[in-house]
Amino acid sequence: MSKQIRVALDAMGGDHAPEETVKGAVLAVAENQNVIVYLFGKEDALQAELDKYKDADRSRLIVKACSEVVAMAEKPIVAIRAKKDSSLVKALEFVRDGEADAFVSAGSTGAVLVGGQTIIGKIPGIKRAPLAPLIPTKRGVSLLIDCGANVDPKPEYLLSFAQMGTVYMERVLGKKHPKVAIVNIGAEEEKGNALVKETMPLLKAEKGLNFVGSIEARDIPEGKVDVILTDAFTGNVILKLYEGLATSLIGIVKKGLLSTIRSKIGAALALPALKKSLSDFDAAKYGGAPLLGLKGLVVKTHGSSKSVEVKNSILQCETFGREDVNGAIREKLGK
Amino acid sequence: MSKQIRVALDAMGGDHAPEETVKGAVLAVAENQNVIVYLFGKEDALQAELDKYKDADRSRLIVKACSEVVAMAEKPIVAIRAKKDSSLVKALEFVRDGEADAFVSAGSTGAVLVGGQTIIGKIPGIKRAPLAPLIPTKRGVSLLIDCGANVDPKPEYLLSFAQMGTVYMERVLGKKHPKVAIVNIGAEEEKGNALVKETMPLLKAEKGLNFVGSIEARDIPEGKVDVILTDAFTGNVILKLYEGLATSLIGIVKKGLLSTIRSKIGAALALPALKKSLSDFDAAKYGGAPLLGLKGLVVKTHGSSKSVEVKNSILQCETFGREDVNGAIREKLGK
Repeated sequence: MSKQIRVALDAMGGDHAPEETVKGAVLAVAENQNVIVYLFGKEDALQAELDKYKDADRSRLIVKACSEVVAMAEKPIVAIRAKKDSSLVKALEFVRDGEADAFVSAGSTGAVLVGGQTIIGKIPGIKRAPLAPLIPTKRGVSLLIDCGANVDPKPEYLLSFAQMGTVYMERVLGKKHPKVAIVNIGAEEEKGNALVKETMPLLKAEKGLNFVGSIEARDIPEGKVDVILTDAFTGNVILKLYEGLATSLIGIVKKGLLSTIRSKIGAALALPALKKSLSDFDAAKYGGAPLLGLKGLVVKTHGSSKSVEVKNSILQCETFGREDVNGAIREKLGK
Repeated sequence: MSKQIRVALDAMGGDHAPEETVKGAVLAVAENQNVIVYLFGKEDALQAELDKYKDADRSRLIVKACSEVVAMAEKPIVAIRAKKDSSLVKALEFVRDGEADAFVSAGSTGAVLVGGQTIIGKIPGIKRAPLAPLIPTKRGVSLLIDCGANVDPKPEYLLSFAQMGTVYMERVLGKKHPKVAIVNIGAEEEKGNALVKETMPLLKAEKGLNFVGSIEARDIPEGKVDVILTDAFTGNVILKLYEGLATSLIGIVKKGLLSTIRSKIGAALALPALKKSLSDFDAAKYGGAPLLGLKGLVVKTHGSSKSVEVKNSILQCETFGREDVNGAIREKLGK
């Protein structure tokens, strides 16, 4: 592929900005010749960071100066209205105006969600835009949808998320007839909260879906389904617990390996192979989560993202762009 | 303690009944001289299982014959009304009538919840009875409340669960001023779904609680709070994902350890120490979950429980009984 992909990076967003965002951009540009990154943020700070990388191809790392930053704790709607010259708002406008193909941010999830929907806008006919990260499983990855946008969704929203998730898995991961399941607390028909019970008949009735019924949280890491459907509250709990438990268990494994002299010797021999296995279960390598159903490509990466996650999120935009996920969603669900 | 504890065991409940339930009862009786187990179920089957254990003290393993079994997939209310001679109904009635101190089952969660509330009954003044398991954390255990009883609770129910959970952690685990947090998708004030937003002011206003605010799912395994408050849908997702991820990650660790010759040698040296560390994170050793706020003690253990979990659930009844959790709840919250 020789088509260039232009990414507008909110270089001030995230816990480790601008050091790690700039480094991520430098790494992405070095890894893929087709990538151009526009870095939005405070000019002095960004230039100083860029100057650390003598070999970087500065022709594809373009600083776009803006004076404000949306902080993590700010109310999203208020911040977006008030901070017209923030890196987040300016970068989103750049995509809206067709000057970049994709937006990437490690900043406030709320601000990205609100900004994406109000500045770039939803595809006509799409009522809500879900945030849909890939999560690692024993068999590869599954799409967890929704993880951020709709904490108290209507059943019809979940139906459209199932459809968007299906398009995503077909296009981006090349899955044929991706299996869709809804997160539930048991496999029996009568189980579930009100939302699940109301959504179930809609999913069953929709012919275009390969809907396989309920999935219990216990079975999510098994990777038996491709699209895991849920409200954003539960989705966020699943995503965060995935991270927290993986970190804790890896810590416990390390502690166990270093607890006796005998096991320390064992650890020295076993650790390289073990690290390789565990890295397959590291959510960071899958980059950011797209906000689906928008007129442009918006990718949110974790607030605590380091350069590797930022780089992966930028590189991911090429796949998203090439496969034109939002175009396919517009074709299938737009009006 | 020389006081006897009489446990009515639904010996037909669970995926591995009656083999593992009977074995669990035999192990419990052998481990603690104060425990008497009444095994409810099909007489022939139970006697045949008991006959496998020649050394068992049969004077404290008493079979109570009944002809029916409540299956996992049955509708709870229907099954409890129809199957008057089931092991589940008969064992609950035994507790209601004061002939046993506690009820233990690995059977259908729904049937235990409905049966516990309708046959044994709630303490007057308690509107809903939550299911509250202990979950392992880096620092010990936390109480996850609610995990089964109320998938769409009212804010006032969650407030009373926070109070019951506080009593539990004070009495059973000896924690002073246990910290209570509500599961949420961010620490900021405006985050959360409708339920969390409505419950938050009630929790803040309640003087008797050591309420510390929101907890993100990522931080649950850290063990920074004692009582983790949530609706039963989210609670069930957390509990099941805990199990599923722990199992998957341990599998990945094993695979990693056995993937090269070098790491195999390392594994042989490291495995004993590693197993010891990982066993601390094994939910099974914490036994079953009590259904709080009832007139009697009802403990639900996992449907897939083996003899160890059944044994631990039976032994746990002694602590619950000794500390009189439900008595303390009645005193604090009953009318």
